[in-house]
Amino acid sequence: MTTLAIVGATGAVGSVMIDIIDARESVPWSEIRLIASPRSAGKRLKVRGEEIEVVALSPEAFDGVDIAMFDVPDAVSAEWAPVAVSRGAIAVDNSGAFRMDPEVPLVVPEVNADQAHERPKGIVSNPNCTTLSMMAALGALHRAFGLRELVVASYQAASGAGQEGIDRLQAELAAVAGKGVGHRRGDVAEVIAAAGLPDESPFPAPLAMNVVPFAGSVRDGGWTSEELKVRNESRKILGLPDLKVSATCVRVPVVTTHSLSVHATFDREVDVATAQQLFAAQPSIVLVDEPEAKRFPTPADVVGEDPTYVGRIRQALDFPNTLDFFVCGDNLRKGAALNTYEIAEELVRS
Amino acid sequence: MTTLAIVGATGAVGSVMIDIIDARESVPWSEIRLIASPRSAGKRLKVRGEEIEVVALSPEAFDGVDIAMFDVPDAVSAEWAPVAVSRGAIAVDNSGAFRMDPEVPLVVPEVNADQAHERPKGIVSNPNCTTLSMMAALGALHRAFGLRELVVASYQAASGAGQEGIDRLQAELAAVAGKGVGHRRGDVAEVIAAAGLPDESPFPAPLAMNVVPFAGSVRDGGWTSEELKVRNESRKILGLPDLKVSATCVRVPVVTTHSLSVHATFDREVDVATAQQLFAAQPSIVLVDEPEAKRFPTPADVVGEDPTYVGRIRQALDFPNTLDFFVCGDNLRKGAALNTYEIAEELVRS
Repeated sequence: MTTLAIVGATGAVGSVMIDIIDARESVPWSEIRLIASPRSAGKRLKVRGEEIEVVALSPEAFDGVDIAMFDVPDAVSAEWAPVAVSRGAIAVDNSGAFRMDPEVPLVVPEVNADQAHERPKGIVSNPNCTTLSMMAALGALHRAFGLRELVVASYQAASGAGQEGIDRLQAELAAVAGKGVGHRRGDVAEVIAAAGLPDESPFPAPLAMNVVPFAGSVRDGGWTSEELKVRNESRKILGLPDLKVSATCVRVPVVTTHSLSVHATFDREVDVATAQQLFAAQPSIVLVDEPEAKRFPTPADVVGEDPTYVGRIRQALDFPNTLDFFVCGDNLRKGAALNTYEIAEELVRS
Repeated sequence: MTTLAIVGATGAVGSVMIDIIDARESVPWSEIRLIASPRSAGKRLKVRGEEIEVVALSPEAFDGVDIAMFDVPDAVSAEWAPVAVSRGAIAVDNSGAFRMDPEVPLVVPEVNADQAHERPKGIVSNPNCTTLSMMAALGALHRAFGLRELVVASYQAASGAGQEGIDRLQAELAAVAGKGVGHRRGDVAEVIAAAGLPDESPFPAPLAMNVVPFAGSVRDGGWTSEELKVRNESRKILGLPDLKVSATCVRVPVVTTHSLSVHATFDREVDVATAQQLFAAQPSIVLVDEPEAKRFPTPADVVGEDPTYVGRIRQALDFPNTLDFFVCGDNLRKGAALNTYEIAEELVRS
């Protein structure tokens, strides 16, 4: 008898968690409990054909829960994950609240599943979606070749900023389409303003017909929080505290699925054919790498899919032991809901 | 008495060449001749307030021409630039036909203006637009610190594929806007097809609500022609035949202005403040680097502008002597028409 709770069940990631549970052939849960803020309590959502009433977040809501998956803002996780633990649950948290806590493992099951079982605080963290999008691929390469250096540029989707981000991008696209803009400095912003969209946006610049080299908040040295997450979380997941990382995180006008251009340097000799074999052998990766046939991953082909798609694999011409490649992963699935759920499955399996 | 010819005067880049000439306070040309394919001959275009009739490409069209700027397909340049030279003109060519020819200089005036004057074939080449977008910035840094390694990821605009590319992106955006797509694998492509857009596209995948990690054609080792241009042209312009370069070129749904995420390693110590000073001191660069105030370059703020915009300058945390930064340049202006015209100005000045 095992009870799984979804905290934040009515959010964008919570909905995908339910989709994933619905799509599983069988689940190990005897009960699934849906928890959300008081304003969503009372809603009824269908899970595996059964209507379940959403209950309000409270200490009692965790009574009898074995595993509680959290997708809520950092401050809510910081407060409530320990409450869930105090009521006897293991918390699997997708916020940034605990990721770099040395007493909380940061887990990608294909890479470091064993660490999910050492959790002094009763909490397991799920990585940031940008880091996660490349982690299955990097984990496979690291095991074979020994990762040393990483230079990454991201092409991040609007849904990384939640439902608000999706809504804003769709509204901006509706405002600019058919207007013949994009030819003059500022004309995109003018048309968006003229369409009556509020100045307040989840993005610091127009995202339709644009790219925005800024995600998160700014930290020391001009690095963004998102770029530092890619560095620090990659190091922790791979167990490489000295891994060299430079990441530049850029938002693009895509609804869902993050893409990354990765330049990865290894301790040992690498070649494209071996990398392709490693990727093809891993169930959570789909290899799409036939550039002659114009076949490579794009976010529009990956959205809604569980696996990470990898392609454009090239041996660096001038850097020893180095591969360049392009990876696409659905930031709401493997980047959030799916990996969190896979951690929960790992916990119940053992 | 100096005559300037524009070959390809009716194309997307040719039109911008005329805009640039119109915007100059004064020009050194006593005559401007407009040359295009026979099907455009007879059209009348205004240049600096004067109507000029477009003449058909022929050997005689170059008689009396001192400098002929070419923006035509590679094969047309390969055939006709030598004809222009045989008629006494200097050809300044924006195609790929001569860029890597050791007897043809590849010139960015801020970086290697002197080389425009050593031209055994009478031809000067203008670099590829992607390379050009970062060259003013890299040239300034190279002079100060000595460039050694370059890892680049691009965010390239649709107009890099010409007017056809612009038209396709605008049509795709009109097809997808307001349709609520982008949530399911393939739904963007379905809506584009349902709107009646032809399967044939200048891009190998939908570009609206997507990013496409492929530009040009595929070459050895899975590298694209565009990616190899960035490597080989950067080496030639900077006079660094052993410069280490890895580039990944990705098309994004932006009409005009290429952006690049650049990770550059130097021989000597670098710091952000000095780099900012170097950029601020160069007339062809605009520094926009106040991330705390959410000020950084985006293509929507740079389109139609002559200078290259640079921001998000960060000292790499783990790589010695290395800067990461983001640069935006209008691919039709500095990336094509403007640099070509600046070469012509350099030639007439001396």
